[in-house]
Amino acid sequence: MPVGQIECSPEPVAGIRLAAAAAGIRYSGRDDVALIECSPTTTAASIFTKNQFKAAPVLLAQANLDRASPRFLLINSGNANAATGDMGFTDAVASTEIVAEHTQVRPEEVLPFSTGVIGERLPIDPFKQVMPELVSGLASSHWLAAAKAIMTTDTVPKLMSRKLDLGGKIVTITGMAKGAGMIQPNMATMLCFIATDAQMSRGQMQDLLQEAADSSFNRVTVDSDTSTNDACVLLATGESKVGIHQGSQEESEFQDVLTDLMINLAQALVRDGEGATKFVTVNVEGAESQVAALEVAYSVANSPLVKTAIYAEDANWGRLVMAIGKVESELNPNVVDLFINDVCLLEAGLKHPNYEEALGQAAMKSEDIEIRVVLNQGECSETVWTSDLSHDYVTINAEYRT
Amino acid sequence: MPVGQIECSPEPVAGIRLAAAAAGIRYSGRDDVALIECSPTTTAASIFTKNQFKAAPVLLAQANLDRASPRFLLINSGNANAATGDMGFTDAVASTEIVAEHTQVRPEEVLPFSTGVIGERLPIDPFKQVMPELVSGLASSHWLAAAKAIMTTDTVPKLMSRKLDLGGKIVTITGMAKGAGMIQPNMATMLCFIATDAQMSRGQMQDLLQEAADSSFNRVTVDSDTSTNDACVLLATGESKVGIHQGSQEESEFQDVLTDLMINLAQALVRDGEGATKFVTVNVEGAESQVAALEVAYSVANSPLVKTAIYAEDANWGRLVMAIGKVESELNPNVVDLFINDVCLLEAGLKHPNYEEALGQAAMKSEDIEIRVVLNQGECSETVWTSDLSHDYVTINAEYRT
Repeated sequence: MPVGQIECSPEPVAGIRLAAAAAGIRYSGRDDVALIECSPTTTAASIFTKNQFKAAPVLLAQANLDRASPRFLLINSGNANAATGDMGFTDAVASTEIVAEHTQVRPEEVLPFSTGVIGERLPIDPFKQVMPELVSGLASSHWLAAAKAIMTTDTVPKLMSRKLDLGGKIVTITGMAKGAGMIQPNMATMLCFIATDAQMSRGQMQDLLQEAADSSFNRVTVDSDTSTNDACVLLATGESKVGIHQGSQEESEFQDVLTDLMINLAQALVRDGEGATKFVTVNVEGAESQVAALEVAYSVANSPLVKTAIYAEDANWGRLVMAIGKVESELNPNVVDLFINDVCLLEAGLKHPNYEEALGQAAMKSEDIEIRVVLNQGECSETVWTSDLSHDYVTINAEYRT
Repeated sequence: MPVGQIECSPEPVAGIRLAAAAAGIRYSGRDDVALIECSPTTTAASIFTKNQFKAAPVLLAQANLDRASPRFLLINSGNANAATGDMGFTDAVASTEIVAEHTQVRPEEVLPFSTGVIGERLPIDPFKQVMPELVSGLASSHWLAAAKAIMTTDTVPKLMSRKLDLGGKIVTITGMAKGAGMIQPNMATMLCFIATDAQMSRGQMQDLLQEAADSSFNRVTVDSDTSTNDACVLLATGESKVGIHQGSQEESEFQDVLTDLMINLAQALVRDGEGATKFVTVNVEGAESQVAALEVAYSVANSPLVKTAIYAEDANWGRLVMAIGKVESELNPNVVDLFINDVCLLEAGLKHPNYEEALGQAAMKSEDIEIRVVLNQGECSETVWTSDLSHDYVTINAEYRT
């Protein structure tokens, strides 16, 4: 655990109020819209999807962040407002205008986020109907309600907090995320909103967020698919009056805690991945380069044959060997070691003399499995987290729109 | 159909004899070993897997091809003899020595091929036991028996012939292949053996085979996984006495027919892909480069979310848009057209005004589906063939070793 970190239940963040409501955009009988209000002193950093079919709300949120500091974030689930072209952009603008009208801010001070089905127009009337309820319902204690409202095929909300003791001065960081499927963030994340009451500059926050994302959301995969709507936002309200200066020891501690929080949120996405029955950590060590380490890690983590074997609790190391070997980076197969949890399956490219099938099968029974690939050809290592490929993944995704 | 091509049932090839037998290596109650004999005048070309964990038989076959022209090919199913190290290589050598002993050829004139479970030692006694039966059973008419013996999770043998009329001189080409899973050949193929009675030089044959593979086996994917044992061999016995000269019109006609045969074999692999219920052609047109076209085609063809939607007969074009957009090649999403069969879903990046869900759903009911992506940003096009991702794929691969 990073130095100075205090583990805690989801905690309010001074300067942040939230509300959730049921607008009936796609789901019935549950909240599907969340509104987050930030105090006027708030600065924001953000990372968005690298998918080239960026959803309308992604394009508008990026544009608005360039024009103003955000006062409100409006998030809906059930409809992604993606692949909807100019009309989709107009709809996204309209949704921010509804917020602006009810809160006396400018539309560009509102950031829109959408998640759900791609290719359908976002209805605007539901936002009009629930906006009075949302605005009057804003409260600093409503993090859990908001975290539930942004879920799609997620089965549990992902919400957690950290407190950081900086020589007696306490800052709070609270974050929520949603995931489930279409998850291999590409230098970005699924929807994730993190707030802190620390005081920081925007450029500084952007660096902190990017570094944390590269160790967390950019290291998970459920199904190798990258969403059109991925977005990760860090808000700093400054309400704690604790300034964190660039290059300071405090900044380094804040970075550690932010990264730890985001790794935990990212891992929670994988644990709740569509149809997931296993949580798999793929550690690749001894690679010639970071690129090679990451290529091997993703090759293993995304292999359908590896993932179905894990689902079957089958220590099918032949498939692991196949997945390691199919990368483009050059490898020497004759020096590779391979472990599942503490069990050594392969030593210098060959079945370990003490390995027996029963050892591998026993290791595979755990819900949490570590696959460790020791390439023994360099000093670089990378970690990727993934889930298995189950009948339920197929069922969920064969039925999602019906 | 290429000029001069005559479609025909599986035809013997002068100079080639085959046999199959049940050695009980892994399967019981079915043939699992095939032996192919080539006449002494035979020349051979070959392409092998790019997987870096190359199986022992792949390494030995490559070495033997450098030392001699092949007289026999020995193929077993059920055990891949992969990730078995020096012992696996010794076992592969031993299997060729058994053939040599019974046929009075040198061991290096025997090429070994194995397919099946990775990471287990190949038992040698079964080869000793069936070799007399195999050698005495060699016959030019036994192509189908051999094609069945090399199957693993395949449900049907893949075997076909072409005859080519070169100004009255007839040459025959017959090929067989096996596939089913772990299929995204990487500049190589699954097991495929093709023989012709034409006369050609080895270098010339290698060029013909590589060009045909690049349009056939190197354009299919079932599950994005690349086998450790992929091999494709072209044998030319010369027994027809029809010489095909380098750079001639005849060579160009031979290339067309060989490519057509291999495309048909590759498509047969996809149709029989593990759990496949659909045969999907992904055509990408108007790309800036071949690399970009192929990247988009494979991104669509390998997307688990696209493949589960196809399994569900759901015209979920949002997932298609996602899969197109997640490539690294730069695209302009606002000019992309998208079709399923003849139905236009997306025009210039937007839902086509005449598109209705019912049209898409009707198109998805076909067993054969074409996804056509018109990027409208260049002149390059590529085609990839794939299958869907079904419950049966998970079932087959969760149970393969048990």
